[in-house]
Amino acid sequence: MKKIDVSILGCTGTVGQRLIEMLHNHPWFNIVSIAASERSASKAYKDAAINWYLPIDIPEDLRDMTVVNTDPGEAEAPLVFSALPSDTAKEVEGRFAEAGCAVTSNASAYRMEKDVPLIIPEINAEHLELIEVQRENREWKGYIVTDPNCTTIGLAMVLKPLHDRFKLDTVYVSTMQAISGAGLPGVQGLMITDNVIPYIKGEEQKVIGETRKILGKLESKQVNFADFKIACSCNRVSVVDGHTESVFIKTKEPVDIEEAKKVLRNFKGEPQKLNLPSAPKEPIIVREEENRPQPRLDRMAGTVPGMSASVGRIRPGFDEHTLLLTLISHNTIRGAAGAVVLNAELLYAKNFL
Amino acid sequence: MKKIDVSILGCTGTVGQRLIEMLHNHPWFNIVSIAASERSASKAYKDAAINWYLPIDIPEDLRDMTVVNTDPGEAEAPLVFSALPSDTAKEVEGRFAEAGCAVTSNASAYRMEKDVPLIIPEINAEHLELIEVQRENREWKGYIVTDPNCTTIGLAMVLKPLHDRFKLDTVYVSTMQAISGAGLPGVQGLMITDNVIPYIKGEEQKVIGETRKILGKLESKQVNFADFKIACSCNRVSVVDGHTESVFIKTKEPVDIEEAKKVLRNFKGEPQKLNLPSAPKEPIIVREEENRPQPRLDRMAGTVPGMSASVGRIRPGFDEHTLLLTLISHNTIRGAAGAVVLNAELLYAKNFL
Amino acid sequence: MKKIDVSILGCTGTVGQRLIEMLHNHPWFNIVSIAASERSASKAYKDAAINWYLPIDIPEDLRDMTVVNTDPGEAEAPLVFSALPSDTAKEVEGRFAEAGCAVTSNASAYRMEKDVPLIIPEINAEHLELIEVQRENREWKGYIVTDPNCTTIGLAMVLKPLHDRFKLDTVYVSTMQAISGAGLPGVQGLMITDNVIPYIKGEEQKVIGETRKILGKLESKQVNFADFKIACSCNRVSVVDGHTESVFIKTKEPVDIEEAKKVLRNFKGEPQKLNLPSAPKEPIIVREEENRPQPRLDRMAGTVPGMSASVGRIRPGFDEHTLLLTLISHNTIRGAAGAVVLNAELLYAKNFL
Amino acid sequence: MKKIDVSILGCTGTVGQRLIEMLHNHPWFNIVSIAASERSASKAYKDAAINWYLPIDIPEDLRDMTVVNTDPGEAEAPLVFSALPSDTAKEVEGRFAEAGCAVTSNASAYRMEKDVPLIIPEINAEHLELIEVQRENREWKGYIVTDPNCTTIGLAMVLKPLHDRFKLDTVYVSTMQAISGAGLPGVQGLMITDNVIPYIKGEEQKVIGETRKILGKLESKQVNFADFKIACSCNRVSVVDGHTESVFIKTKEPVDIEEAKKVLRNFKGEPQKLNLPSAPKEPIIVREEENRPQPRLDRMAGTVPGMSASVGRIRPGFDEHTLLLTLISHNTIRGAAGAVVLNAELLYAKNFL
Repeated sequence: MKKIDVSILGCTGTVGQRLIEMLHNHPWFNIVSIAASERSASKAYKDAAINWYLPIDIPEDLRDMTVVNTDPGEAEAPLVFSALPSDTAKEVEGRFAEAGCAVTSNASAYRMEKDVPLIIPEINAEHLELIEVQRENREWKGYIVTDPNCTTIGLAMVLKPLHDRFKLDTVYVSTMQAISGAGLPGVQGLMITDNVIPYIKGEEQKVIGETRKILGKLESKQVNFADFKIACSCNRVSVVDGHTESVFIKTKEPVDIEEAKKVLRNFKGEPQKLNLPSAPKEPIIVREEENRPQPRLDRMAGTVPGMSASVGRIRPGFDEHTLLLTLISHNTIRGAAGAVVLNAELLYAKNFL
Repeated sequence: MKKIDVSILGCTGTVGQRLIEMLHNHPWFNIVSIAASERSASKAYKDAAINWYLPIDIPEDLRDMTVVNTDPGEAEAPLVFSALPSDTAKEVEGRFAEAGCAVTSNASAYRMEKDVPLIIPEINAEHLELIEVQRENREWKGYIVTDPNCTTIGLAMVLKPLHDRFKLDTVYVSTMQAISGAGLPGVQGLMITDNVIPYIKGEEQKVIGETRKILGKLESKQVNFADFKIACSCNRVSVVDGHTESVFIKTKEPVDIEEAKKVLRNFKGEPQKLNLPSAPKEPIIVREEENRPQPRLDRMAGTVPGMSASVGRIRPGFDEHTLLLTLISHNTIRGAAGAVVLNAELLYAKNFL
Repeated sequence: MKKIDVSILGCTGTVGQRLIEMLHNHPWFNIVSIAASERSASKAYKDAAINWYLPIDIPEDLRDMTVVNTDPGEAEAPLVFSALPSDTAKEVEGRFAEAGCAVTSNASAYRMEKDVPLIIPEINAEHLELIEVQRENREWKGYIVTDPNCTTIGLAMVLKPLHDRFKLDTVYVSTMQAISGAGLPGVQGLMITDNVIPYIKGEEQKVIGETRKILGKLESKQVNFADFKIACSCNRVSVVDGHTESVFIKTKEPVDIEEAKKVLRNFKGEPQKLNLPSAPKEPIIVREEENRPQPRLDRMAGTVPGMSASVGRIRPGFDEHTLLLTLISHNTIRGAAGAVVLNAELLYAKNFL
Repeated sequence: MKKIDVSILGCTGTVGQRLIEMLHNHPWFNIVSIAASERSASKAYKDAAINWYLPIDIPEDLRDMTVVNTDPGEAEAPLVFSALPSDTAKEVEGRFAEAGCAVTSNASAYRMEKDVPLIIPEINAEHLELIEVQRENREWKGYIVTDPNCTTIGLAMVLKPLHDRFKLDTVYVSTMQAISGAGLPGVQGLMITDNVIPYIKGEEQKVIGETRKILGKLESKQVNFADFKIACSCNRVSVVDGHTESVFIKTKEPVDIEEAKKVLRNFKGEPQKLNLPSAPKEPIIVREEENRPQPRLDRMAGTVPGMSASVGRIRPGFDEHTLLLTLISHNTIRGAAGAVVLNAELLYAKNFL
């Protein structure tokens, strides 16, 4: 099989590094171009990725690849992975889409646009139909597909089967997020050691909006948001990788705990049906131990490491309409790099490329 | 003024160490006896407190004091401070009360007994009337007064003025608790580094029951629990001291955010009126910065360091009956040693000694 | 090929867990028995290993294996891996050797005995000749082979090629050791967070003695210790896995830095010649970056993850006889479980089984 | 007594914050001006010090003081405290000295200049005579006095009495330095969590040079460096405040351990004689516990908190000329802000102002 040429925009940050890790031996994709901001451009990757944080070395064949500018003229490819910071993503990704590239983006810039699919392949693969609308609206030869924020992704996956089965009324979620989620340079060591930072700029609004869009229904070429309510408090804790979320759920229908576990365990979607390379066999792993999941132990869960969310402490609240649980998912794999890769694999398998 | 002789039960643990720190120069109390388990008994304090964790040295005059057994025969005093582990507290504290001591306890053993006051002096000083009931019921010459769990205490203080003003309907709280709250030996370093432990044995039930008892009304010599609902998820994070709590509140009456801040700021109680030595001028400090309170920065807040709770991120949820906030209080000071000391000061000022 | 039946003594601790991980799919060995202290015996492994700290799940086929007592009657096998605590190892390992088992031990009990080989296969495989002496002396049907302390192992590997080339005069080493090295329950979370503990009981004497024995020469059936001097300060830092060591070396012959790097890079031994399954291609990886090695990034280095030591910051001191460097090796893999496994593989390949 | 007006240059960083803390209630000095880089200038201090890291609030009276530019025209005062970054200190401090200010600086820019005193008041107060040389050489109305690097300061204090008594031959020091030493933004949280960084740019050369200058002798108006050798490896660890140093010392005269403890304990200097406000009674505290000093427990040691160095594990090496010890000092207090304050107090008491 001939591999598809791909480029990576924003290749030096934490998500960019994970993309390098996940794509450099990918069975379908072939990295032909890596791009980053002006500061990095024209350097060898090994000299540009000065804050390499992964416990593997930079792949041998990419160490000396030259980083180019995030410009279609320099980094064009049929398929473009974007890990750009949000402030530049709007303009840059638009130019790549205009130039005819399929852009699978981890940036927040386009996520909430009406004609842009915000996809978790296990949940709402059918939202890809928005691509057609988008190209028409914007007169682009290419298009943009987005994945959600790293905190949204584990939450939405866990809420989906519960919403289908018990109808959600309200969700309260308090997060304990890993340092790598803040990117680079990210959180100062002086601030996060022996501390909790109870605020992450813009994060709560993302979780609230994105979750309801992803669980929304595509009707007449637009997404009608899911109608439950969400309140969210985001906290940063001293953990390298892996977001933990304490979730309190009010349901419209009464909850049976064993039934809740069952629908979570059985949850599967398009990636599992299509047997996509980065699809874990079980998107959700249910843990029965009283003190799991834990980020250090469970962030790499899944048959594709880091691609499954882990859920535990599934228990009733004060009445039969209240369900409590704790979930963990890997923020730079399932919550970012793995998410764009899985979206790209879905696009390929569904013949969007 | 002649000081009252006091003894400390459980003097070697994290709370016992804080009691030593707070009592060794106390204006009203004079340590005459320090007691601990058999393993420590008959050792000099400096040799028994092998896991000293405070950044001050053991007070010079106590270094060589001999630790005695937790037995009324050895550690009797008019006023007894108990930082005993729960499994031994039931029996031991009972014997001290029987022997005629006033026991101010930080253990959970008696907290939920109907005839035992569970006191936060700013909130429910009037519950001390239960002492009379207790002595009658149990035919004790002395009595036991308890303080709440370290997680309850900050929460209850913050909920009290909000409940008075807006009537609470439901409270969802997710905690990020400090390591020192687990006592000694406590949480393993291997388990809490680069990790979150989403479970603390027994903690959630304590928070739920105790909060409703403390905010309850004393009527006909018994406490009628406050009637709002609580759901709670307790997590341990890599912080030395200071519990952080994300709180989601549903109220019966609509909430005005500025009014909420005002009632929190203005909250005062008996300790402030009586000007007790360990009473902070402001029991609750409201912070306006978007990223405060933080445990490393705010745990020592208050005119008496560590005795004030700090609240921040006070904001609306998805409707006018939803209020969100984050609070921090020092778990071994306000949440434990400071709590029993303040209770003792209240007993003294109210002539219960 | 028929696999050799093996048992694991001390299967629940940090090293025991790593042994489970490394042996459950081993090409030559087959776990038939797992043993631990009385507290764990007769429980299923999943219920005994309550402090599982590895980011993989307990292997499916071992979850329900019953833990037995550390007694030859219950846990006998041709090959026995011991991760016993030192206080019980002396007696227990002796009984297994007496019963005819080949014991490959990670405990310190027998390391410094004159007739017991203390082996790092890359360095002193020939010391296995002591087995014969040992069996004769002790009238054992089996025998004991030991590996060094987790701090010694990286140090000795790095010193070996330097000693061969430049003749060591004096070595000063200051360590920054990981929490997992203290086993379970190990270091208290309260003590290691935001802290350094500048003392590890017994550790410094082990490093000093063991290093000189391993680099010693076997002559007339006894080991003559290497004759350089060592001073050592051991510190515990807040790192999960991976010991870091700052090393200052005085040499008898003048040092050329490039030559030093070269002999380190080229260092190979019996495991590489014999192509043992757990042998990394390069026992020592030399890093050129100015800020490497780092424990989080380099502890899993090597073609067999965690089996290579990483060395960096190789530089001159104040004269041509002074060499400075920093090294890292994984304390529970190369420094413990991997060490006993590699020793076992060496025994097999050399026909000692 | 009329207080002397002072200004602070670089008031927003970690050292600047400590200066604010130490000076805002100082008995001799009165803050009239606070200055920082262009980014902060003309903001209120509370808005400029966005990375406030101290567990006390910004002093009430300084919250709204306007930050000015680091220019003599805006921030001139008879006494100027500089916590400027090294790259700007050279030019800026020179201009203040030229303008007639007495500059007491924590920056490295001028430390090693021949005519600039590098002072630890307990050790080499007499080096202040260089001020006269400096003013003559440079034709400045004012002058610059510097203090050493945060790692040098604890080391030099401990070496001084040992050198006087036993004559140092060689010193090997491996450091475990706190995060706050890197200033702001400083070390990335992602890099220092679960990690050690074995490199701090420029640090080792500073320690080596500065220590020998400080312990040098003033002869014929110049400093002849102390003639022992030093090798140094600097490491960053996950500690908020407090540098730990493992020190190996070769002496020319044989060492008696009890005598070494005695000279350390008895060490005193000008600040103690002059009873300077920031002088601790004991500059060096000797600890006898086997596992002390520890940064979290000992960094605030001293009658003036954070101004004493703590030394422990004082023990012999492999011969009578080898002495091993571990020391801790607070890097932003004794090692930086407290150092410039103590220097300023010395200048005042010695009539240099």
